Amino acid sequence: MSSLLIIGGSDAGVSAGLRARQIDPTLTVTMVLADAFPNYSICGLPFYLSGEVGDWHQLAHRSLADIEGQGIQVRLSTRVRDIDPREHTLRAETASGATEILAYDRLMIGTGAEPVRPPIQGLEQNGVFTLHTMEDSFAIARYLENSRPQRVLIIGAGYIGLEMADALSHRQLEVTVVEQMPAVLPTVDPALGLPLETYLQNHGVIVHTGVRIEKIRNSQADDRGLRVIGDHHFEKEVDMVLVVVGVKPVNALAQSAGIRLGVRGAIQVDRTMATNQPDIYAAGDCVETYHRLLNRTTYLPLGTTAHKQGRVAGENAAGGHREYAGSLGTQVVKVFDWAIARTGFKDQEAQAAGYHPFTSEFRVWDHKAYYPGARELVFRLTGDLHTGQLLGAQLMGHWQAAVAKRIDIFAMALYQQMSMAEVLNVDLSYTPPLGSPWDAVQMAVEDWIQQVRAGNP
Amino acid sequence: MSSLLIIGGSDAGVSAGLRARQIDPTLTVTMVLADAFPNYSICGLPFYLSGEVGDWHQLAHRSLADIEGQGIQVRLSTRVRDIDPREHTLRAETASGATEILAYDRLMIGTGAEPVRPPIQGLEQNGVFTLHTMEDSFAIARYLENSRPQRVLIIGAGYIGLEMADALSHRQLEVTVVEQMPAVLPTVDPALGLPLETYLQNHGVIVHTGVRIEKIRNSQADDRGLRVIGDHHFEKEVDMVLVVVGVKPVNALAQSAGIRLGVRGAIQVDRTMATNQPDIYAAGDCVETYHRLLNRTTYLPLGTTAHKQGRVAGENAAGGHREYAGSLGTQVVKVFDWAIARTGFKDQEAQAAGYHPFTSEFRVWDHKAYYPGARELVFRLTGDLHTGQLLGAQLMGHWQAAVAKRIDIFAMALYQQMSMAEVLNVDLSYTPPLGSPWDAVQMAVEDWIQQVRAGNP
Repeated sequence: MSSLLIIGGSDAGVSAGLRARQIDPTLTVTMVLADAFPNYSICGLPFYLSGEVGDWHQLAHRSLADIEGQGIQVRLSTRVRDIDPREHTLRAETASGATEILAYDRLMIGTGAEPVRPPIQGLEQNGVFTLHTMEDSFAIARYLENSRPQRVLIIGAGYIGLEMADALSHRQLEVTVVEQMPAVLPTVDPALGLPLETYLQNHGVIVHTGVRIEKIRNSQADDRGLRVIGDHHFEKEVDMVLVVVGVKPVNALAQSAGIRLGVRGAIQVDRTMATNQPDIYAAGDCVETYHRLLNRTTYLPLGTTAHKQGRVAGENAAGGHREYAGSLGTQVVKVFDWAIARTGFKDQEAQAAGYHPFTSEFRVWDHKAYYPGARELVFRLTGDLHTGQLLGAQLMGHWQAAVAKRIDIFAMALYQQMSMAEVLNVDLSYTPPLGSPWDAVQMAVEDWIQQVRAGNP
Repeated sequence: MSSLLIIGGSDAGVSAGLRARQIDPTLTVTMVLADAFPNYSICGLPFYLSGEVGDWHQLAHRSLADIEGQGIQVRLSTRVRDIDPREHTLRAETASGATEILAYDRLMIGTGAEPVRPPIQGLEQNGVFTLHTMEDSFAIARYLENSRPQRVLIIGAGYIGLEMADALSHRQLEVTVVEQMPAVLPTVDPALGLPLETYLQNHGVIVHTGVRIEKIRNSQADDRGLRVIGDHHFEKEVDMVLVVVGVKPVNALAQSAGIRLGVRGAIQVDRTMATNQPDIYAAGDCVETYHRLLNRTTYLPLGTTAHKQGRVAGENAAGGHREYAGSLGTQVVKVFDWAIARTGFKDQEAQAAGYHPFTSEFRVWDHKAYYPGARELVFRLTGDLHTGQLLGAQLMGHWQAAVAKRIDIFAMALYQQMSMAEVLNVDLSYTPPLGSPWDAVQMAVEDWIQQVRAGNP
């Protein structure tokens, strides 16, 4: 009887454990967690902090009992200190400070990511937070409860930054968002980021773009206040600062065990999710991600990816043979009533990958305008001028206009490397309240084709 | 300079005309319509009759001016009497009764379909209607306005029948639906039809299934009333009857010109949409439809299909080379707040096509349940037990739960003949308010795989 040890109890770890037990029900699977929160939805933290999710326990994808019910032994609050790949053992420290040696036949590392701490003076001050773990969110919840901040400044207008702007507006705080790039949500084109900025402002969010924050000081006027200072003479007094400028892989444990690191310090894995050390797999936010369109690895930490990679790692660790099919970089975020989504490449990414991209913009109703409640969708489609291949799609509109699932239609097409013209062939559904005889996604594709035909690019 | 003549001005005809002009802007394109309503949305008629669309002019996909603006000459109220394929001419009768001979280089027939009139006695009576054309809907609108019926009986619980049940409930009429099959909406499994029946009843619709209507008589009690009589002792007194039991191809003109007919009397076409007569194309509700999964033709008249076929016919008529990619039978209908959708095969259809199908049923929330507003989705997935190939999907749930676009994800997979396991590989979007790390569609697929693995079938 062989054993699988899993370090980390978030998406990748739990997926690996469940899949391994599915493949080989005789396998002994043990999951070692540094904290006490197995399988919590990190993506759900903003909705807990907004007050929309009343009880943080609801954020668990699965309860501890569910996981144990699948035959996975779980060791909470146990921190792995080092791995000995030759001996197939690891040394762990329990909550009480005791040290244990644990042996494994196969090991799966799912240590995840941690927030990037940018070079800003004063990040250690009271009232300054990052947001990535359950502990982070408890600290923020306590501060919101006890210190009753009125004004919050969010550094970073990515997915989490904008979700938190929504969440804290929901709690009636005055929210300021500061983004170093020229437009909010830099993962999509500024052509979408700029109207989104106006939309945020219409919801009372103060937005500053093109500003780099340099230091955070105690206020002289107000002993609870924080003075946030940036370039271009930016200065703002607030009661709370949230630093959400991205994450980086947690890699120290792997590195010290002689596991090779790759892109941006992420653990190097092949498509079976194996590392360079024998019998050691890794998955999730701590690893490089194979990108299906790039046909090479990149760093793209996402929950969806962690689940898929964990599943592959678990299958292979249990003796299976599976390759990770690759990420397309599909993402969606809901901010107030808008959803903004993307999949595949933006124009400059396609160019960097050696394509000859053209990106079109197209606006259309989500369903037949004669039926009440039609919402405008804004598409930005990227395709290759030489081959007509679809390379990427961006979409923004009201969340009820099926933005997320429409971007998934493009994800399906990208997965199969379909051409723009071929997307027009697909028999998609139609009824006037929910679509058009050619769905909005197909009308956007037709517009791309016609723009290319007309020699627009 | 060559000429294209188009008979019919609905989806197929207009699509053919527009595409032909795109391919060859020098082509003379003339469209001959029997009525005065080019490019009207037949699918929109229930929403006009419900009162949700205030003005019937809004139902036009394009105005006459739009069509003419694309260089298409339109002849309204002109009925084609016969076609001479050898001479490349047709004889038409104008509104004034004059006869004209029109010559063509290429001809495209888009005569559409007409309602099936079932063998029921008394269909000719005042207060009994079919619904397929603009004229039909005007007649119904006038009757609703002038005769103020209180009680309506709808024969047929297909898409139009259920949309009209919703529409006339919206107008505060007492609505009874009678369906000959054992469950409403026979295009999906009774496992969905039966809960849908309860849902209709909860919205005040009276539903009778397994009843075949035999005659409609004048009421003895009420001179305005109609007595509707069926088998199993069914009798009901109402003020209005709507007969919506499907459509059949309008084929007499084609047949008299020596054009070969196929499945259910529909015009036989190859995948270029060419008929057996030289230079004559046909598309839309009057033709056989190539089914991509069946790899043969069937009769499946839908607006989406008519647009795609018309486009192919237009391209080829203008000298292009394009094949129709085929239908997947993708359909969706909104009834009150539910959407019910399908694509591909149901179990018995897959069996008839030579597969070894297994159909699973799976219920899941549309998004993470911890975020407010989660709605239950019911999936029925059909796949092949030997190969794991996805063969079909049915889905029912609240329309805001992206039912239509989720069925389209399956349509994309069917188009590419993907296996169930491969659907799990695709990087679909996720944010807690709009989905799950494995989207609901993927959870349903995983459930199908696990049921097969567990030897459920």
